[in-house]
Amino acid sequence: MPELRKDPISGRWVIISVERGKRPSDFGMRVSPKKGGFCAFCEGNEHTTPPEILAFRPGSGQPNTPGWNLRIVPNKFPALNVEGKLDRIGEGIFDKMNGVGAHEVIIECPDHHLTLSTMPIKNIEDTLWAFHQRMEDLKKDDRFKYILVFKNEGDDAGASLEHSHTQLIALPIVPQLVEEELYQSKQYYEYKERCIFCDIIQQETSSKTRVISENDDFIAIAPFASRSPFETMILPKKHESSFAPNDSVHNLAQILQRTLKQIDTVLELPPYNLMIHTSPFKNANNDYYHWHIEILPKLTKIAGFEWGSGFYINPTPPEEAAQFMRDAEV
Amino acid sequence: MPELRKDPISGRWVIISVERGKRPSDFGMRVSPKKGGFCAFCEGNEHTTPPEILAFRPGSGQPNTPGWNLRIVPNKFPALNVEGKLDRIGEGIFDKMNGVGAHEVIIECPDHHLTLSTMPIKNIEDTLWAFHQRMEDLKKDDRFKYILVFKNEGDDAGASLEHSHTQLIALPIVPQLVEEELYQSKQYYEYKERCIFCDIIQQETSSKTRVISENDDFIAIAPFASRSPFETMILPKKHESSFAPNDSVHNLAQILQRTLKQIDTVLELPPYNLMIHTSPFKNANNDYYHWHIEILPKLTKIAGFEWGSGFYINPTPPEEAAQFMRDAEV
Repeated sequence: MPELRKDPISGRWVIISVERGKRPSDFGMRVSPKKGGFCAFCEGNEHTTPPEILAFRPGSGQPNTPGWNLRIVPNKFPALNVEGKLDRIGEGIFDKMNGVGAHEVIIECPDHHLTLSTMPIKNIEDTLWAFHQRMEDLKKDDRFKYILVFKNEGDDAGASLEHSHTQLIALPIVPQLVEEELYQSKQYYEYKERCIFCDIIQQETSSKTRVISENDDFIAIAPFASRSPFETMILPKKHESSFAPNDSVHNLAQILQRTLKQIDTVLELPPYNLMIHTSPFKNANNDYYHWHIEILPKLTKIAGFEWGSGFYINPTPPEEAAQFMRDAEV
Repeated sequence: MPELRKDPISGRWVIISVERGKRPSDFGMRVSPKKGGFCAFCEGNEHTTPPEILAFRPGSGQPNTPGWNLRIVPNKFPALNVEGKLDRIGEGIFDKMNGVGAHEVIIECPDHHLTLSTMPIKNIEDTLWAFHQRMEDLKKDDRFKYILVFKNEGDDAGASLEHSHTQLIALPIVPQLVEEELYQSKQYYEYKERCIFCDIIQQETSSKTRVISENDDFIAIAPFASRSPFETMILPKKHESSFAPNDSVHNLAQILQRTLKQIDTVLELPPYNLMIHTSPFKNANNDYYHWHIEILPKLTKIAGFEWGSGFYINPTPPEEAAQFMRDAEV
């Protein structure tokens, strides 16, 4: 069982793999994803993944057989264990608990060669519905307080397999970065009686310099204080505190794919990370938090200054990044 | 002039290079430090750096000429501008100020081939004194609230030059990560009337499993909730809120070099980041914060889960890391 440990000085939680600890010789010889070799996520290889949790099959196929459009399986090497109790305990001054959580992989498309920016838009819509279905199911388990959906695209962004996939981790605690956003947006709401995200959308829409694109329901912007070049945030235009696809799902799929196509065009297929931030289960409907997608192309290195300060140095102003993205022909 | 911008949702500050913004084509073709080429930090090339701020010359040499043991120069490509006023202003909902700060480079040794783990211990002592001298000088400038000393060793840790060097950045705000540590340690002090770091040292000394080494004045430990494999923290055993070398400087140089030798031996010269955390100028002497050095070998990738949550996944338990370090023959 992995352990969740809290650093008492920073308040930060860490997942420690106490069982199969990596030895010094396991580092350094980092193996890149094999190009063109065997792929467990391809159609026909269903038996090589753990048994599927959910799949969208247009025909009447059996589970773990070909014929699917989308497939969700447990991560073969999960960061957290789905079985077990939390057992919060102290170790002298320190706090820890069992590393309980769910870690699942969403294979968005059977075709090995497609990515979120090139696959049929129907697959992206299905993917968004699938996130929602898994969230609805996992929140019934009262050990879990939050689900983080994230994607690592490309080796440098931490992807260990080439076939396009997204991951989700159900956590027994609300992550620190989400807590910070909740705290700040709540403070703002108490002072202004308005959602800070709604206010940002209004200001960005009127000044236009950081708007990348928009449709009837969603807007993509380069955040004012982007951590890294070409960081992008996609938000629903109307206040929605929690991620939940509805009849605007096509427009969400559309702006997401358009944004990724722009990134791929401007930066020539860069590695990137994508994360969904949403309200915790316990307070899913509120007036102050506004769910959104964050996309971070991996273009700069995190070095001593960032590790020591929590500051980021961004060499590309978001106004220029937004202009490059708007000008991209996709 | 770079800009300091605050993200209103996370509270995080970012340095944006608004003047010479990097264009998309500047990324991707990342140039590695040239091995064996011209080096501006080597003896004889003093005229190719900006004029020196401080140097230790055992003879009576002129500034910016050979004959030095240690040299401090302004960073040729500073993240912040040393001239100018802060000018805190709003931009609608957002907050920003001029990117004012000092960015200096400490060249610890004239020999291109030595590192902190191989150079004479006298150079490390000199380096520690030099940090202190620069801090004492820069704190007279009331635009600055904090100085972060950090080192990027190796290409993957963000070093852009091969010749061993440390950097310091004087900042007009206390960095968020330091603020968080100050907040937590203050809370602990209010509750317990003891320094949390002193308590950690006591617990680690008695359990021993995470102690890497110690001498009369300092201890090196693998933190209970290490963010990454082989993370190491060096602390003074007696309570000291601010970094200030004194008659124990030899023991600090000794444990620092010993720790880096252990890391180099166990992990075969890994890239790493090193940071000094100390109390802000305004409250340099206090009972709750305890200065320390953090060393983070760069062995894992920061991916979507970490970016989205602030959690870290560490595949090597600190107890095992400490054992490997203790067993290393250095």
